[in-house]
Amino acid sequence: MSPAGLTYDRSAHDAVELIRTKRDHGRLSQEQIEWMIAAYTDGFVGDEQMSALAMAILLNGMTREEIGHWTAAMIASGERMDFSSLRTPDGARRLTADKHSTGGVGDKITLPLAPLVASFGVPVPQLSGRGLGHTGGTLDKLESIPGWQAELSNTELLRQLDEVNAVICAAGPGLAPADKKLYALRDVTGTVEALPLIASSIMSKKIAEGTDALVLDVKAGSGAFMKSRADAVELARTMVALGTDAGVSTTALLTEMDTPLGLTAGNAIEVEESIQVLSGGGPADIVELTVALAREMLDAVGISGVDPAENLRNGRAMDSWRRMISAQSGDPDADLPQARHSHTITAAVSGTVTRLDAMAVGLAAWRLGAGRARKQDSVQAGAGVRMHAKPGDTLTAGQPLFTLLTDDEHRISRAAQSLEGAVDVDADGGPHEAPDLVFDRISAADLTD
Amino acid sequence: MSPAGLTYDRSAHDAVELIRTKRDHGRLSQEQIEWMIAAYTDGFVGDEQMSALAMAILLNGMTREEIGHWTAAMIASGERMDFSSLRTPDGARRLTADKHSTGGVGDKITLPLAPLVASFGVPVPQLSGRGLGHTGGTLDKLESIPGWQAELSNTELLRQLDEVNAVICAAGPGLAPADKKLYALRDVTGTVEALPLIASSIMSKKIAEGTDALVLDVKAGSGAFMKSRADAVELARTMVALGTDAGVSTTALLTEMDTPLGLTAGNAIEVEESIQVLSGGGPADIVELTVALAREMLDAVGISGVDPAENLRNGRAMDSWRRMISAQSGDPDADLPQARHSHTITAAVSGTVTRLDAMAVGLAAWRLGAGRARKQDSVQAGAGVRMHAKPGDTLTAGQPLFTLLTDDEHRISRAAQSLEGAVDVDADGGPHEAPDLVFDRISAADLTD
Repeated sequence: MSPAGLTYDRSAHDAVELIRTKRDHGRLSQEQIEWMIAAYTDGFVGDEQMSALAMAILLNGMTREEIGHWTAAMIASGERMDFSSLRTPDGARRLTADKHSTGGVGDKITLPLAPLVASFGVPVPQLSGRGLGHTGGTLDKLESIPGWQAELSNTELLRQLDEVNAVICAAGPGLAPADKKLYALRDVTGTVEALPLIASSIMSKKIAEGTDALVLDVKAGSGAFMKSRADAVELARTMVALGTDAGVSTTALLTEMDTPLGLTAGNAIEVEESIQVLSGGGPADIVELTVALAREMLDAVGISGVDPAENLRNGRAMDSWRRMISAQSGDPDADLPQARHSHTITAAVSGTVTRLDAMAVGLAAWRLGAGRARKQDSVQAGAGVRMHAKPGDTLTAGQPLFTLLTDDEHRISRAAQSLEGAVDVDADGGPHEAPDLVFDRISAADLTD
Repeated sequence: MSPAGLTYDRSAHDAVELIRTKRDHGRLSQEQIEWMIAAYTDGFVGDEQMSALAMAILLNGMTREEIGHWTAAMIASGERMDFSSLRTPDGARRLTADKHSTGGVGDKITLPLAPLVASFGVPVPQLSGRGLGHTGGTLDKLESIPGWQAELSNTELLRQLDEVNAVICAAGPGLAPADKKLYALRDVTGTVEALPLIASSIMSKKIAEGTDALVLDVKAGSGAFMKSRADAVELARTMVALGTDAGVSTTALLTEMDTPLGLTAGNAIEVEESIQVLSGGGPADIVELTVALAREMLDAVGISGVDPAENLRNGRAMDSWRRMISAQSGDPDADLPQARHSHTITAAVSGTVTRLDAMAVGLAAWRLGAGRARKQDSVQAGAGVRMHAKPGDTLTAGQPLFTLLTDDEHRISRAAQSLEGAVDVDADGGPHEAPDLVFDRISAADLTD
């Protein structure tokens, strides 16, 4: 793990000139980008300047070349990790596999996925983040487990990876510190959705982390950053190209995010659902996506001909989960925190559910306290939304649709507002055809240039 | 003079939702705008959030209604002044008239204009600012007069207005504090050029100041904020609408700023030129614009059928000037500071001057020390540029073109660089047709809605 950091000449460029260039649809040079990232990481360029640039990037875009320079500068802002010391007893390298999701409502896939892949003997270094906007963060979810610690030193991370295979932990402050600072800034300035910044943020961390293989879950739909499938495909192609260029075996699954994943959106309630999946049960969509991603990860490190679903049923993935949680001081048997207030919303009419809007559910969970408005805010472990019906399910008027959970009663009315119109019910009760959860796949072979 | 300040409910709105609305081309409601300005002034909304919103406003614009709400919210962030206590001996209200220029190179018009209008018995409360960037500030110029004080209490301001009619002084910190904070932020985030923010910044201060009539000098050209006439006209229309809606009698003159005004750009040398105008002499363009603006101001408070130029020739405007300077502890008879170094640039060829670039002259004056790079910097009283020929003048090779003045000899070479290519000379010496200095006028009657 090599410490790094950038040196730069304060007077070589001017932040305002750089902002103006992008504001006026110009291109930033490699030197300008390197200077901006270094000066921002150092604090010479202020948050208020970087946020103006981020908004200009969001609205005016960046070329693929600019994105490449931006990603490289973010990697160079910090240390790079190295897992090449992980060896089999006979001295062969153990290739690591990692997954990244662009974020969706109810997306707790990392929780069952990391221990599932680890249960096949593959080291999974899953360095994760906290919540960004209306989608929850993996660390926020895991922190609802009593005792569980997100922070590991590089030495602890490497040891756990060697002994337990699975690690989900906070990315250390040394890894792409520019990204860490920028990620927090984007979260509070409405600039999360900038495609060039999403791609470079994700890929700078994953490349600096030093994983051998990376599978991306790129989501499209109302509850995703990318609303359209075309945007999601563009993001996936950009990221697969960035990873491939950096020597990381990178593939992407394109997945549907108009509907929340599973039946929970929150923190502790998503852990609970993940444990159901690790016990061989749980919602079908969660199982389907977990298995599809596991297959990609196993494939990327040369393991084929196995059925990932088998290890969900036979308890091996659960064993990995328990060891992973315990290794980070968590108690896998502890009761999870519960919200102090609960409020049920019932169905007004009978029929078949044809739509359940992911964004509305995400916003409701966020308003209930499961997510944060400002980077210094904390989240409520017990808050969130339980869904009682998904598209395709039939309902009777008066039957529960949602349960809202929060520690602050006053949050309920605004959360309930965001769920108005979130569900469409077909009173005729005709059959409902759900779209495919995984709708496309992109690998290096699909890139034309 | 009523102190104010805004109360707001922190949880009523969310800064990120607001930023996203404008980012995605939506409209902000009155309530959202009031909340944002109040929460920003208070510090609950951070600089990084406001700068992202400012960039979104710059790139996506604001409706006239939004700009009106924004301006009203900035006014409400501070105190409002009230000049209704100014009365004639028989108890009638004395209407006040003010002028604002969007800023140009060599623009010292306020200096002769305020005492000129005051010499007709009209109170002129000219609350001004300091210079930032390539255009000088009125207070910076006046502070070159030995003893002169820019800061007045509200009581002193009202007394001087009653007794001397003319006051040019610093705007107090209580007036539109939201604007003060936002202006400083825009300066470092590449968002100065946002038309809605320029308009609301100017008009919030002028409306809060409580003047009855306001004449705007909106400049277009290389040395102005607005490079194109179309942009200047749009800004003028926006500001006239804002003033009119707030009950201030507002008109705008659109004026040309490709060429500097007068023959000086600096501080003490601009005061010297202003005194020439008040003595019945001075450059023709300065006299023309001063008289045109004075006529608008007099007209707006009901004084017509007078010739402002007469009071420049008969010494009444000069009497007002002397009383105005003395009232603020300045010595109108003192020698003005002179720069320690002077450097002459001569003409390379003979012919007729067809162009003299305002931006280049402004930049040279700024580099010589007449302006400041950061708001905490001080300016040199004696620094600046004297011009010896203007468009239409004929030149002989070797004749002086510019005299550069500064206290720091090392500043001369970079200032001289900015003047390279700033002058076009037609060697054939054909006649030069100068564009009209005042190219348009907008009043409430010209607004269609």
